[in-house]
Amino acid sequence: MIKANTHVYGVIGDPIEHSLSPALQNWLFKQFDLNAVYTAFQVHPQNLKEAVQAMSALNLKGLNVTLPHKAAVVEYCDKRSGDVDCLGVANTLSRESSGVSASVTDPQGFIESLGQMRTQFKDAEVCVLGAGGAARSILFALATLETGPVWVYNRTREKAEHLIRESKQAFGLSRARTLSESELNAAIESCRMVINTTSVGMYPQTDASPVRDDAPFSDQHFVYDLIYNPVTTRLLQIAEQKGAHTRNGLDMLIFQGLESLRIWTHADLRLSISQLNECRTLLKEQLYE
Amino acid sequence: MIKANTHVYGVIGDPIEHSLSPALQNWLFKQFDLNAVYTAFQVHPQNLKEAVQAMSALNLKGLNVTLPHKAAVVEYCDKRSGDVDCLGVANTLSRESSGVSASVTDPQGFIESLGQMRTQFKDAEVCVLGAGGAARSILFALATLETGPVWVYNRTREKAEHLIRESKQAFGLSRARTLSESELNAAIESCRMVINTTSVGMYPQTDASPVRDDAPFSDQHFVYDLIYNPVTTRLLQIAEQKGAHTRNGLDMLIFQGLESLRIWTHADLRLSISQLNECRTLLKEQLYE
Repeated sequence: MIKANTHVYGVIGDPIEHSLSPALQNWLFKQFDLNAVYTAFQVHPQNLKEAVQAMSALNLKGLNVTLPHKAAVVEYCDKRSGDVDCLGVANTLSRESSGVSASVTDPQGFIESLGQMRTQFKDAEVCVLGAGGAARSILFALATLETGPVWVYNRTREKAEHLIRESKQAFGLSRARTLSESELNAAIESCRMVINTTSVGMYPQTDASPVRDDAPFSDQHFVYDLIYNPVTTRLLQIAEQKGAHTRNGLDMLIFQGLESLRIWTHADLRLSISQLNECRTLLKEQLYE
Repeated sequence: MIKANTHVYGVIGDPIEHSLSPALQNWLFKQFDLNAVYTAFQVHPQNLKEAVQAMSALNLKGLNVTLPHKAAVVEYCDKRSGDVDCLGVANTLSRESSGVSASVTDPQGFIESLGQMRTQFKDAEVCVLGAGGAARSILFALATLETGPVWVYNRTREKAEHLIRESKQAFGLSRARTLSESELNAAIESCRMVINTTSVGMYPQTDASPVRDDAPFSDQHFVYDLIYNPVTTRLLQIAEQKGAHTRNGLDMLIFQGLESLRIWTHADLRLSISQLNECRTLLKEQLYE
């Protein structure tokens, strides 16, 4: 029950009305018995600075930041984690005595969503589809995981080249190069993991896929689609038909949110397998409501 | 369940952690099936302007305002209702296309809390204890009800004189005068209604009363204490022992909140008797938790 001493958290973005973060975080608050509530705030880009200032004015304990504010918000914060400096984006703001502190929990959310598997990808070749903000977070996570060579495919190849150049400079990404469309299937064949960071296949364009139907997936592949709406994209359908292990974006969403909550509470919060399953079910229900 | 499209409302004050408004408004939202959530924001006086600006920045749909901001907030609003101009205070902010609009729902909350009885006080003498902001709202309500002469008792008599002078000027209060302590009991005897607007008797000073034990209450009196914690103050105990009808401050709290919600929703919302009883019970539980 919300009372006057209930701590207030929220997410800022524009548009925001389809965010799953309120459902996720309020569920997490309940699991960890926190007297807190989490709401969504629609913030126009021109009001972003005032929105960050509102954290102090309204005594908000923490904010998540989503599109289109993840890069722009950084300059309004008083402190930045090392990861924010590397990636140039933040998705988690917390209020400290020294001001507003910015963190980014997407790479940690990705790594944690791999579970026990994460060690299997050391030195393995990885293929990343897309070259936007999400791809940058994934490259950062892959560098942390010390995978082998990373192949980046993007329709506009220059954008992929630019991302790799920046990633090498910002966080020492090594052994990465771009792919042409004609090289994609060959690269997939030699990779252990394929990660889609584009929005191709996202609702309502659910028939679209970032790879061709003849992509050479096998039971040796782990195919990760950051999309969670639909929970099984065309890409994952293609991969599953060929026996690949697959994962949608729900777990990354859950674990980046859990990491935000750890930052806000300074507590090493963990979810059991049954809690994780309950959370997945809850979020899926939200999607199809 | 709170979702990303749930409208956000709240109350600003300092201190705020004992406000009943979150419990009240979230209960009202449920009764009227509104997709809305209401939280409490602790706002330091130096941040008041930013807090009002945050309404637009964070897309807050409405705010209640409580101590110590009710007077100071008025200057930060773009529009004021006539009542706000009369009383110099606001407790309800709503966002309109033209900016932030300020209203005050305390007088309406008082009037509505009298229920069917309200017509009985036309031309009746009324005694008001106290001369602060709450007393001013009550004088405004009494003027609206067209009661008879109003007697104002305050320990510092000059303050009561000042309040009456201002009230005559601001909203045409007629036939009002102050009382000395020695005149109080005689005035009570000739009054139909006695209203305590002071904090004397409020938790934790529950043994205190704004009138003496020998106050000449009878079954002809209606004694209204704006205090709701405790729900039966020493004043109300004294009055009940002598057969007077009594009322505590819970109903005024409920009806001022309902009036705020009407302003925010532009809907003529009404509570049934059973809903009102359920709401009283809920708020009492909050008090003694």
